[in-house]
Order: sequence, then structure tokens, then C-alpha cells
Amino acid sequence: MKHKGMLIVLSGFSGAGKGTVVKELVKKYGYQVSISATTRSPREGEVDGREYYFKTKQEFESMIEENGFIEWAQYVGNYYGTPRAFVEDALLEGKNVILEIEVQGALNIKKQYPDAILLFIAPPSATILKERLIGRGTEDIETVNKRLCRAKEEAQDMEQYEYLVINDVLDECVEQVHQIVLNESCRMRSQSDFINTIKTELENL
Amino acid sequence: MKHKGMLIVLSGFSGAGKGTVVKELVKKYGYQVSISATTRSPREGEVDGREYYFKTKQEFESMIEENGFIEWAQYVGNYYGTPRAFVEDALLEGKNVILEIEVQGALNIKKQYPDAILLFIAPPSATILKERLIGRGTEDIETVNKRLCRAKEEAQDMEQYEYLVINDVLDECVEQVHQIVLNESCRMRSQSDFINTIKTELENL
Repeated sequence: MKHKGMLIVLSGFSGAGKGTVVKELVKKYGYQVSISATTRSPREGEVDGREYYFKTKQEFESMIEENGFIEWAQYVGNYYGTPRAFVEDALLEGKNVILEIEVQGALNIKKQYPDAILLFIAPPSATILKERLIGRGTEDIETVNKRLCRAKEEAQDMEQYEYLVINDVLDECVEQVHQIVLNESCRMRSQSDFINTIKTELENL
Repeated sequence: MKHKGMLIVLSGFSGAGKGTVVKELVKKYGYQVSISATTRSPREGEVDGREYYFKTKQEFESMIEENGFIEWAQYVGNYYGTPRAFVEDALLEGKNVILEIEVQGALNIKKQYPDAILLFIAPPSATILKERLIGRGTEDIETVNKRLCRAKEEAQDMEQYEYLVINDVLDECVEQVHQIVLNESCRMRSQSDFINTIKTELENL
């Protein structure tokens, strides 16, 4: 029997370097990033099934009705959601699947998938977070301040996650996340097959 | 501030190789094995403070009254217990402390020390367990059967542990346990200092 993959829900402050961590996990260890479905129009260069699954409003709504999303939300008039089939197929193939998602979605997913790993990525300090956001050079100071305000709110929810990994040195952070995922296969809750087998074996010795 | 050590509660079937795993953790990674106190007489070669802390009945009972044990039990007319001060001092020094203990004690300790890691060591299969017990050559078949009966009972409690590590190849098992312990420092519950600091920092940016 193929070993089922792990579902990893990743959140963290904007500027914590989540995106880079995810890219490394994909590149180095073959993690599968979940691809969302959306009703917004494709932008130039976006490919259906790569950046997003592009759906009509009607298609999206019937997927909602059929329980086809593990989470979904509306944002600026468009739907966004994580297709259940995509995630579950990948897990069955033994792939570790990463969802980048916010706290409410994360907690919802944990209710549906108790084995999911809830991980929060944080920078070493708030000062470093600010420096990173400014250092990107892609955003004006107003946007940076908005992101810091958002971080303040997100910090209130951090404690609802299971693991906190500090992204100081990228490689170490990536290794740490991967190691946490590997260890989860030793969690008692992941081992019911082994437990049942050895119990039966002991009875029949 | 020195990082506090982790408290590891280790259980497992007799014959699973717990003792060897513990020895390797001490040798390779400087883990501290908890030394029990007992009222039984020292055997030849046993040194006070190495194998056990040898106590009189009166000393032991006043330690019980003073809440001086994190767990204790009576066995064949003698007391055995884990001195609280020994464990807590070692943890404060940043040492990872291992207790080899049975399920009831393990669950009691988890109540007192919610950060403690409850680990169960199992052989790859019941057949291999039996082979190992026979292979030791130190016990007659009756004793082997008693141990297998005991394993059957212990298997009923396995699921109350947090992690199950299978001891197939010793080195891999040791690495796996060590990695679990290292990762526990990323558990959200172990990071309240960091969380409070970054929250305050974010407020004051």
C-alpha cells in the first residue's frame, strides 16, 4: 500500500517568506502546492490548471453545492476555493500537499482533516519583518504599514497553529518544516494500521 | 536565557529495544536519564546517585508528603519514584530528560508537564518481538511468554501516547526519536516567549 501524503496548511505574516519556503519544498522534496479554483479572469501568462483552475460562476457554485471545495471564499466579487478532489488525489498518490491559507480556513481544514499539520511561519522579529517588507522595494510605505497592521491581527491567531517555524535562514526553515512533516508519520494518530496489525499479531502468537 | 530541555517519557514492549535506544541518546546527544529513588537495598556494584538514589522508608515517605516525586509506586514491598528536583534541575540546565516508565505513570506526568513528549517504542512486528525475546537467550520460554502476554496488555494502551517509533534499525530509531524531540521546540505550546515578544514588538513598531 502506498503511504498517504500529508496535508500541510501554511500561514504566516506577509513578509515572513512563506512563498519562498513553499517553492523550496516543491523543488527539493516534491511537495505539491494546492491549485485553487477561481471565477476571476485569467491574467496574461496564467495557464488554466497551473496558476488556477478558471471556472465560471455557475461551475463554481455547483461545485460548492456538491461539497467540491475543502474551503472557499468570496473576495472582491470573485470566488476562490480549494478543490477537494485535487487535494485528495494528490494525498492518495503519496504527495505532501501544501495549502497557503489564512487562519479561518486553516481551522476549518483541521476539522475536516484532523491529520493536517497547521504551520505558522514567522520572521525572527517584528523589526526584521518591517525591514524585509521595505527591502522588497515593491511597495510604498502605506502598503507596508497595512501589511504590518495585518500582521498585528494575524499574531492574535498564531497560537491556534500547531507549529511555529521561524524563518531566519531560509534553508534551515525549509529543513525544519520538512522534518516536522516527516515526523508526523510517527504521530500515533497516523499509525492506526500498524497498531491494529500488531494487536492482532500479538493475539495470535 | 538558556533553552529549557524537553521531558521525554519513553515506554514500549519489553524486547522493543528501549534500553539500547536510551543508551544511544545519552551517548550521542547527551540526554539525561532520570535516576529513580528507591527504598530497596543497593545490589553489588550499584552506586548511590548512579543506578538509584537509595533512601530509607522514612526518607521516601517524607519526600512523598513534600510532593517530591513526579511519580512513585510500590513494588514488591519497596518504593520506587522519580525525584521532582532531579528532573526539573536537569530541564532548567537545558538537558533533555528521559523517563522510562509505564503507561499510568506516563499519563500522570503528561498532566503535570503538558510539554512532555510521550513516545512508544515498538518492534516492527510481533513475530520479531518474539524472536528478539528468545534470541536474548537470557530467559526461559515461560518468561518469554509472560513478556508477550504483558505486551498484549501494553498494546491496549499504545494509543494514549503521542508518537510511535518503530525500532527496526537501531540508528534510524534513535535519529527519529531525536528529531521528534528537536521538532517539539517548534510546537506552538513551547513558544510562548517568542509569541509574546513579537506581539509586543508589533504593537510598538
